[in-house]
Amino acid sequence: MRLGLVLFGAGRAGTIHLNNVARNRRIDLLYVVEDDIAKAEKALESTGIATAKVVDSRCTEDVLSDSAVQFVIVATPTHTHEKIVRAALHAKKGVFCEKPIAKSIDAVVQIYNEAARVGKPLFCAFQRRFDPNFVDVRDRMRKGEIGKLHVIKTCSRDSPSPSIEYVRTSGGFFVDSSVHDIDLVCWIVGELPITIQAQAHAFRRDIADAGDVDTIAIVMKFPSGVIAQIDMSRYSSYGYDQRIEVHGDKGMIIAANAKRSTVTRFSPLGECSDVLLHSFPQRYQYAYENELDHFVDVMLGEKELISTKKDAVAVMKIAKICEESYQTSKVIKFQAEF
Amino acid sequence: MRLGLVLFGAGRAGTIHLNNVARNRRIDLLYVVEDDIAKAEKALESTGIATAKVVDSRCTEDVLSDSAVQFVIVATPTHTHEKIVRAALHAKKGVFCEKPIAKSIDAVVQIYNEAARVGKPLFCAFQRRFDPNFVDVRDRMRKGEIGKLHVIKTCSRDSPSPSIEYVRTSGGFFVDSSVHDIDLVCWIVGELPITIQAQAHAFRRDIADAGDVDTIAIVMKFPSGVIAQIDMSRYSSYGYDQRIEVHGDKGMIIAANAKRSTVTRFSPLGECSDVLLHSFPQRYQYAYENELDHFVDVMLGEKELISTKKDAVAVMKIAKICEESYQTSKVIKFQAEF
Amino acid sequence: MRLGLVLFGAGRAGTIHLNNVARNRRIDLLYVVEDDIAKAEKALESTGIATAKVVDSRCTEDVLSDSAVQFVIVATPTHTHEKIVRAALHAKKGVFCEKPIAKSIDAVVQIYNEAARVGKPLFCAFQRRFDPNFVDVRDRMRKGEIGKLHVIKTCSRDSPSPSIEYVRTSGGFFVDSSVHDIDLVCWIVGELPITIQAQAHAFRRDIADAGDVDTIAIVMKFPSGVIAQIDMSRYSSYGYDQRIEVHGDKGMIIAANAKRSTVTRFSPLGECSDVLLHSFPQRYQYAYENELDHFVDVMLGEKELISTKKDAVAVMKIAKICEESYQTSKVIKFQAEF
Amino acid sequence: MRLGLVLFGAGRAGTIHLNNVARNRRIDLLYVVEDDIAKAEKALESTGIATAKVVDSRCTEDVLSDSAVQFVIVATPTHTHEKIVRAALHAKKGVFCEKPIAKSIDAVVQIYNEAARVGKPLFCAFQRRFDPNFVDVRDRMRKGEIGKLHVIKTCSRDSPSPSIEYVRTSGGFFVDSSVHDIDLVCWIVGELPITIQAQAHAFRRDIADAGDVDTIAIVMKFPSGVIAQIDMSRYSSYGYDQRIEVHGDKGMIIAANAKRSTVTRFSPLGECSDVLLHSFPQRYQYAYENELDHFVDVMLGEKELISTKKDAVAVMKIAKICEESYQTSKVIKFQAEF
Repeated sequence: MRLGLVLFGAGRAGTIHLNNVARNRRIDLLYVVEDDIAKAEKALESTGIATAKVVDSRCTEDVLSDSAVQFVIVATPTHTHEKIVRAALHAKKGVFCEKPIAKSIDAVVQIYNEAARVGKPLFCAFQRRFDPNFVDVRDRMRKGEIGKLHVIKTCSRDSPSPSIEYVRTSGGFFVDSSVHDIDLVCWIVGELPITIQAQAHAFRRDIADAGDVDTIAIVMKFPSGVIAQIDMSRYSSYGYDQRIEVHGDKGMIIAANAKRSTVTRFSPLGECSDVLLHSFPQRYQYAYENELDHFVDVMLGEKELISTKKDAVAVMKIAKICEESYQTSKVIKFQAEF
Repeated sequence: MRLGLVLFGAGRAGTIHLNNVARNRRIDLLYVVEDDIAKAEKALESTGIATAKVVDSRCTEDVLSDSAVQFVIVATPTHTHEKIVRAALHAKKGVFCEKPIAKSIDAVVQIYNEAARVGKPLFCAFQRRFDPNFVDVRDRMRKGEIGKLHVIKTCSRDSPSPSIEYVRTSGGFFVDSSVHDIDLVCWIVGELPITIQAQAHAFRRDIADAGDVDTIAIVMKFPSGVIAQIDMSRYSSYGYDQRIEVHGDKGMIIAANAKRSTVTRFSPLGECSDVLLHSFPQRYQYAYENELDHFVDVMLGEKELISTKKDAVAVMKIAKICEESYQTSKVIKFQAEF
Repeated sequence: MRLGLVLFGAGRAGTIHLNNVARNRRIDLLYVVEDDIAKAEKALESTGIATAKVVDSRCTEDVLSDSAVQFVIVATPTHTHEKIVRAALHAKKGVFCEKPIAKSIDAVVQIYNEAARVGKPLFCAFQRRFDPNFVDVRDRMRKGEIGKLHVIKTCSRDSPSPSIEYVRTSGGFFVDSSVHDIDLVCWIVGELPITIQAQAHAFRRDIADAGDVDTIAIVMKFPSGVIAQIDMSRYSSYGYDQRIEVHGDKGMIIAANAKRSTVTRFSPLGECSDVLLHSFPQRYQYAYENELDHFVDVMLGEKELISTKKDAVAVMKIAKICEESYQTSKVIKFQAEF
Repeated sequence: MRLGLVLFGAGRAGTIHLNNVARNRRIDLLYVVEDDIAKAEKALESTGIATAKVVDSRCTEDVLSDSAVQFVIVATPTHTHEKIVRAALHAKKGVFCEKPIAKSIDAVVQIYNEAARVGKPLFCAFQRRFDPNFVDVRDRMRKGEIGKLHVIKTCSRDSPSPSIEYVRTSGGFFVDSSVHDIDLVCWIVGELPITIQAQAHAFRRDIADAGDVDTIAIVMKFPSGVIAQIDMSRYSSYGYDQRIEVHGDKGMIIAANAKRSTVTRFSPLGECSDVLLHSFPQRYQYAYENELDHFVDVMLGEKELISTKKDAVAVMKIAKICEESYQTSKVIKFQAEF
């Protein structure tokens, strides 16, 4: 059985999903909703999918009323998510949505409740949970390879450094990006933090002028005593830098960066291996494929969603608390209540 | 424009090509010719290609007479290659053939001449030339990163170790396998050797009893003075081991093995990274995709074949000379004449 | 010219210095002051130094009144440092002292002032500043290899895990150990922090019962905006783990752990390199040699001490603030005033 | 008990031994015999050894007649070895000699017989057997970590490239250098080869003009079936390159190159670790210390020499056969008879 799909958005994230949809034998792409029709048609054509139609956002209601559609992927600009997700749930479609589902936490809670009411899966897509390297780290830890977990550290450095236009509409580095690391950390630890503190700085003048930061350090403590350290930067001149380290009483496991090749050159300058992968589409290629497969499994009733309302809401709250901790120079207690 | 294809063989190699065909937007698979109809239908179904028919080998003439067919992929058992390739050329189709095109060197020469006569591309598919790591080694060398080339070394160790049944019908380790390393070495050096010598041994009793060897060392010298060392083994308990090292007066470049993940574990036993990829389908996944793309480019007139009659014939001759060198304990001169 | 030396203490640290003194051609060891005479004589004998006498601590005044003595090394238990250092300065000898010079910050300030008054060098020996790897990281950073520094991270995990007896008399993990990381970070950054925060936990029950912690995370912000993250643990089952990472707008530099050998084993378990060095005597062997050489250079008037009163005092203050930050759950401002 | 020593030669090799003697508490250096008196005195002074005298070679008989002398180290130019070794054995002193003990195989055999007659240890110092990494490779192999040995490969590339003056008096690359690799391979395999073949080339014009080669490939087969591949070059622009790889039915072990530090830089060019060690004094520092310790153990009757007459003679013969194989383009059988 193949699931009918509407893809909202044919931008950067939308194109990633479009290519994965094209290779996924359990999905029939029926519509791409995108106001830049030419861009969407070009992207669609490059995939070779012959059966889908490109329409603009005024047709949203129409495509959602098509009974052949079973789920939607929302990969449009952030400010449009809430409206599309609500409409899709109203039409009783499953929803796979790029983060965040909505800008306010209250809205996110409401929308999850609505999804529960209509009985359709709602998935806030944090792709890092599906990266094979990170999954392997978590699996090994759970199997006891490092004994009891004591410390988890993540490092996320952007490549390429974003434009100031992107920064201005991003909602801020904390809310825009640290949610990924926070989600990953909480998922690996298997708990939500009880104490949160953050430090930050803007080295780029234009980012400082925009009221944002480009460098963040977060420390969280969990009920089991585990301490998390998150290191984030808008700068990585050397490629997309995404690492995890978990440390326990019996050892340490690291997920290193992926490189473009296995080629190494020895010269009077030393031994130089190849560059890191350039950015998230390369680095998380398999993660994007796997998260789509996971959602299809869920739609087909074969699996439970691995990311829940509680996760999505907690991660947003924690990111905002991190920002508050930085701005107020305070260590803040967190109590997850739902 | 999409090219109509007949795939001969749905075994191990055939399945690799089948999956790559399924993702290649410039190919229309029309027929799979395979005597094990059920196996072929199952493989075909798993790709989601709905338009191709599975037929048995008695239908070879019929499918080759279909004017919608523009080229064939030959991935059947070795002893059937010659007949299929001749038939395909007779029908004026392009031919992408797993090595060897035929068992005897004379036949290979004849078939290449026939391909030239009918004006269709004939491609003896040595996939290693399309491995991104090896391509990178060659490109860097050509760009001068190591100065003048002095030494090239390759290491090829099989994983898993083959069954004795495979060994018995393989034609011998020299002819079956060293052709890959010889082709790669000559392609990177850009010359054919002038002196050839080989040593070998059978550590496995059943392989010795079958008159074959499982461990080979080859040394070749080229007109420019370059010395090649090839190290081959039927044993690699630790995954598929395929490495190249090139050394010149200004440096060294190495293509190391690919690993299953970037995960590393630190324990009292040391620092353990993940295992190597298991075997050739994993290790050469991109190489197989790229060689198919290359052949499509050639069929469409966009590129010249990077592997010629001269290459294919020389590689066969050199492999046989290596075997002779081992058996006679002689260093043998080689003169490439065509 | 050779400098006459009194070594106080022939325990763990004392023995390291004893061995380095034996190989240092600019030092004449004259006395070893140690109450366990037999232990000291055995250690001395193993070095082959024939000219030094072993005396007990009651002879401190006598040996310090020997005009052939030009400097002392203080490697006795922490609580005895202050008395010995004061006596040595009173006798107008140069002082090389394991950290801390005294238990209270006030005493440390007084003693530095006294050293200035008598005009003799006083060196609080933080050996990590002399580790060739860390020196290289700092040199490269200063030369601009990573552009402007944004982030510095250190990781220090003890091997073997200390006995509870050691923990009880250590003064606490913050004061006992984090001074090393704090000194290293401030030395590399070239500034003192303006904001300090720390988190910690005791996973070991006996350490918790002793009122101490075994796992620490520290975040400091510097005037230039640089953010430091320090990760410390009393556990490293896999060898002595001491790493630095510096990140700037033009790149990243890492000092990885040293391993026992360059040997690597490939097996079905993956690729396993050798274990890390066991503990600080192995890991910092060159650092201990180099710091001794540095102090001899200073004694001979050839160099200025690279570690000053300001450094020693600030590091103690910062370590105590980290502890306070953890205990009070507060982010604390720091203003270095002297 | 300390052993009285005469060191012959204060050149490159002599200086290495001089420094190790200075740190070895079981040796009293009594004389340095060197015609360049000023050079020897300067070298001696830098070690701080106050008790030794520098004399020129005319005093050889005198110093050998000193009953306080128990052994000699011969580190003079190759053509003087035989005479000094014979004189030392005549005076009944133990002999530690840089390779070769004499230029002709017959002379080496005679001298070993003479050493046996006078009952003094004669040691042809192949330092690589004492390199901790190579020792570890051999130990692991012997313990069965790779199962049964199938293949051994060594790579030796010189840094810096030698002067033409050195090349002219070296005796040729085969005899001068490949003895080290041959000795190492035979020692690890634990057998002598039965079939030998070699290929070579001179890329440097001046080396070709001097009748020598700068690049060598050797293949040897052993009675157990093991195949050895040796790769040697006079060029290593990237530091001293000395590697071993052993491969068996259960795995592979590699001894990689040592690097100057553990520091790695990430930049848009990739990940660059530090350079390899520059040349043999740095790379084999521990090996030189260990071989000296081994010889002292032997002198004191605590150990048997790990390198015997049979080893030294066989290695010379094999090196000459390699050269002959290259010059005659023949595979040559070898039968070790003594």
